[in-house]
Amino acid sequence: MYIDCKVISRNIEDSVRKRIEKLGFSPKLVSITSKPDYSTLSYLESQRKKSKKLGIEFEIMEVPPEKLLRTVEEVSLNKNVHGIFVARPLPEGVDEFEVLSRIDPSKDVEGVTPQNLGLLIYGKEIFPPCTAESVVKILENQLDITGKEITVIGRSVTVGKPVSIMLLKKGRDATVTVCHSKTVDLFKITRRSDVLIVAVGKAFFIKPEHVKEGAVVVDVGINLVNGKVVGDVDPEVEKIAKLTPVPGGVGRVTTTLLMEHVVRSAEMSVYGRDKICF
Amino acid sequence: MYIDCKVISRNIEDSVRKRIEKLGFSPKLVSITSKPDYSTLSYLESQRKKSKKLGIEFEIMEVPPEKLLRTVEEVSLNKNVHGIFVARPLPEGVDEFEVLSRIDPSKDVEGVTPQNLGLLIYGKEIFPPCTAESVVKILENQLDITGKEITVIGRSVTVGKPVSIMLLKKGRDATVTVCHSKTVDLFKITRRSDVLIVAVGKAFFIKPEHVKEGAVVVDVGINLVNGKVVGDVDPEVEKIAKLTPVPGGVGRVTTTLLMEHVVRSAEMSVYGRDKICF
Repeated sequence: MYIDCKVISRNIEDSVRKRIEKLGFSPKLVSITSKPDYSTLSYLESQRKKSKKLGIEFEIMEVPPEKLLRTVEEVSLNKNVHGIFVARPLPEGVDEFEVLSRIDPSKDVEGVTPQNLGLLIYGKEIFPPCTAESVVKILENQLDITGKEITVIGRSVTVGKPVSIMLLKKGRDATVTVCHSKTVDLFKITRRSDVLIVAVGKAFFIKPEHVKEGAVVVDVGINLVNGKVVGDVDPEVEKIAKLTPVPGGVGRVTTTLLMEHVVRSAEMSVYGRDKICF
Repeated sequence: MYIDCKVISRNIEDSVRKRIEKLGFSPKLVSITSKPDYSTLSYLESQRKKSKKLGIEFEIMEVPPEKLLRTVEEVSLNKNVHGIFVARPLPEGVDEFEVLSRIDPSKDVEGVTPQNLGLLIYGKEIFPPCTAESVVKILENQLDITGKEITVIGRSVTVGKPVSIMLLKKGRDATVTVCHSKTVDLFKITRRSDVLIVAVGKAFFIKPEHVKEGAVVVDVGINLVNGKVVGDVDPEVEKIAKLTPVPGGVGRVTTTLLMEHVVRSAEMSVYGRDKICF
């Protein structure tokens, strides 16, 4: 069975619209890119559509690689900007960490600064990485995760590691295992899991025989196969488990959450951080 | 069999002494406390002994609760101080997170600021929490952890969560499961693990029947039972597995690493951070 992620996304959109109305102005998101490839351009296009739909001001700044650091710093200081997104992959020779860590944490709507990632360890989700938060929201919508054995495949900075920390948070209380390319006997582990989160970047990596019947499977993968976008999970898995679709699953909720974070940032600038987050 | 943690600690001490000699001055650690209890006083005393032994300047500042925040900020600005330690538990009514997050990350030798915790997610271990680093060093001394199934019991900010992130780091490559009080059938999980890290704060919580024969068990617990310090693991486990002793195990290495971090901070102030850490 496919999990309906549209309804989750729509609920967040509704809240975003109401909160913008209450704010009384359009918060602004700036996406910074350098030498964007096809998939970056298509992601930025989906940001443009979503922000227009929700009433968020949106600007794309395309700059040469050597100006990335300075641009991030300048936009961080610009009081009219509430959210900053830096598109990856960055051009060769540019240190991704150096660029991302210059984002003002209070405008880091994608949740990629060390500051915002570290806050997750304290259980403080000010700006969690959007994809990780998307996974958590989809799961919470599907089942009570307390005590469930959840396996995360992939240990990336923006999905695997933060989602594992978020699922451990008091109140969520999952038992979390993180696997990756060096894991021995991975499928023994996936088959015993109540929930699988797959973020490996390999088309159809997880097949029905790797999944426990009735499990919940969240597919974070976005792969191009013969010009078609497909996930990390074989669609056949849908027959024995609950599965998020690709496209239109995690990605859809992720883009909506990015916009929600822009609103949150604007709210913090108006009402103060304490009123919003703690 | 007990794991010899003395030798691990001594190797770090040797490196610390050489590096202080190269620096040409004694780095300084300041420990800040407010209404210290018995166990805080005894921990501060062990810091005093260790710093004296290694040639690190050491000062304890005892301040009233309402002056904690300001003291942390002032000491952060003091150029003669290289490391700041804030003793916990803090007095009632003081927000621990508020106090710890005011420490200058470049002097955060205990690794408790959001900034330093978030860097772990990037695989950048500038100042990892000392106890988590102690566990990792002990394990790396005992076995090749690549692909091993490691179970962490406990999800604290300074042990469970950071140690799980550190063990996932590329090059270490463990498969990590984090369990806690809400985990269903905990002992099924502990019995299948190659390595157990126990940080629950309950005397003799893990018994021989919960452990796989030949496993490596790291006991992070410090509990007082009838005036004696004991761990979270029943000493009988030593008969079927490799076990770190309490006292004289993780704690001993932790205090040594705190001093090593003070030296690292001094080195960064002299040579620049890039030369030391990246």
